[in-house]
Amino acid sequence: MNRDNLITEIKARKSFLCVGLDTDIDRIPKHLLDTEDPVFEFNKAIIDATKNYCVAYKPNIAFYECLGPKGWESLKKTLDYIPDNKFTIADAKRGDIGNTSRYYAKTFFEYLDFDAVTIAPYMGEDSITPFLEFKDKWVIVLALTSNKGALDFQFMTDMAGEKLYERVLKITAKWGTPKNLMYVVGATRAESIGTVRKNVPDHFFLVPGVGAQGGSLADVANYGWNDNCGLLVNASRSILYASDGGDFAEKAQEKAQEIQQGMAEILVDKGFI
Amino acid sequence: MNRDNLITEIKARKSFLCVGLDTDIDRIPKHLLDTEDPVFEFNKAIIDATKNYCVAYKPNIAFYECLGPKGWESLKKTLDYIPDNKFTIADAKRGDIGNTSRYYAKTFFEYLDFDAVTIAPYMGEDSITPFLEFKDKWVIVLALTSNKGALDFQFMTDMAGEKLYERVLKITAKWGTPKNLMYVVGATRAESIGTVRKNVPDHFFLVPGVGAQGGSLADVANYGWNDNCGLLVNASRSILYASDGGDFAEKAQEKAQEIQQGMAEILVDKGFI
Repeated sequence: MNRDNLITEIKARKSFLCVGLDTDIDRIPKHLLDTEDPVFEFNKAIIDATKNYCVAYKPNIAFYECLGPKGWESLKKTLDYIPDNKFTIADAKRGDIGNTSRYYAKTFFEYLDFDAVTIAPYMGEDSITPFLEFKDKWVIVLALTSNKGALDFQFMTDMAGEKLYERVLKITAKWGTPKNLMYVVGATRAESIGTVRKNVPDHFFLVPGVGAQGGSLADVANYGWNDNCGLLVNASRSILYASDGGDFAEKAQEKAQEIQQGMAEILVDKGFI
Repeated sequence: MNRDNLITEIKARKSFLCVGLDTDIDRIPKHLLDTEDPVFEFNKAIIDATKNYCVAYKPNIAFYECLGPKGWESLKKTLDYIPDNKFTIADAKRGDIGNTSRYYAKTFFEYLDFDAVTIAPYMGEDSITPFLEFKDKWVIVLALTSNKGALDFQFMTDMAGEKLYERVLKITAKWGTPKNLMYVVGATRAESIGTVRKNVPDHFFLVPGVGAQGGSLADVANYGWNDNCGLLVNASRSILYASDGGDFAEKAQEKAQEIQQGMAEILVDKGFI
């Protein structure tokens, strides 16, 4: 999916919600465990329940990998089931030497046909550029993550006062464009989102950390907004596990709708719709 | 496998060679493509040909993932086929928030039963510690990688003159011990291996970049040696693709033996055997 289509979908759906499909076999309702493919059955119900309220889906690959080949089958079926007008993100946090990154790119962009994949920047240019060679596919570089460990290295400061995450933004922005490159910017560091926005005014941000991790949607919009919205805000656990009973899909729908309504207000306030 | 067993194997085998199973379906000999599982057949032949000359095997997960569920089956069969006295490394370069890293750890340590997994440090402590909770399992943190892109961020210098890769060494060394933590240190930056060794005198290094990438075994031993050898030197393409014909296994054996003989000389010179 290209940038124009994504912006069109945000306007049409009045939402910049991404639903994170971190489908944990240990947390899905027990009655699904009797089905042939519980992970896919769960995802199918979640997608049906939330597709009117979101513009993107983001399976975290860890939850599929841990089930072996069967997990990859569930993932492939999930991808095939997601409606074509949704932006799909492989939350994989890959990155290797160029020769190897090419194979990760084939996995996520060709075999699974995701629109985007998340990439860890530590290994530099040749670990990222192989992913940028695919038409209408996106790299989402980890810049400022939502977890506590983000403080360990991402805020390291050089002699000119520039932090590692700022260097990541400045340097990686030269390798792609706002049409094929986004950044992960955690909602739990609201005040830093503004710094990120100054560094890369035109790029979309994928923002985790609203919901279970405690970030605020209003802060994210306040600090991260740009003229094209520029935000995909992810919620995973707060939607997926809103209930662990037979009403899980209904509760997921309510939660997704609640978030979408908050987003619609922001979109109206900003004069975007 | 624990540290003592690894050191015992290095002495017994007179080798600190790790064979990288970066098995590329597009590069394996054509006659194998008619078999039911070409990737496994290739790995089986490579393992049989090289097991007398190495102490470790390191499949790079990218080459298996790109084949979908079948690739994971080939990987699982390969792991089951590797002799028990070999140290096995999942070259996966994973790393996510704690809740998610736990699932990657389950994948590689429980489902696939690897001894070790490579981890990208960008996301900090909670992305790494879930991997350190498994008995006799290892985390191998990317410190100084062998690729050109290593220069983009790993050499960033803070106000006290400390580089990012040095900070990664110092900080991550507090989370584990030399009994469950190693570092990736590229052979292509020989002079920096000495700096890494000063920072972490007791840890093992996994050293890629000898062979196809141009690093020198003598330099690695010169700069990286410690009292327990402290080195696992990886070669992948130079062994795997020594020939693309029917004699591929024979040529792989010759290449592995040649490297092992160089290592045996170093081990004797150092008085280790």
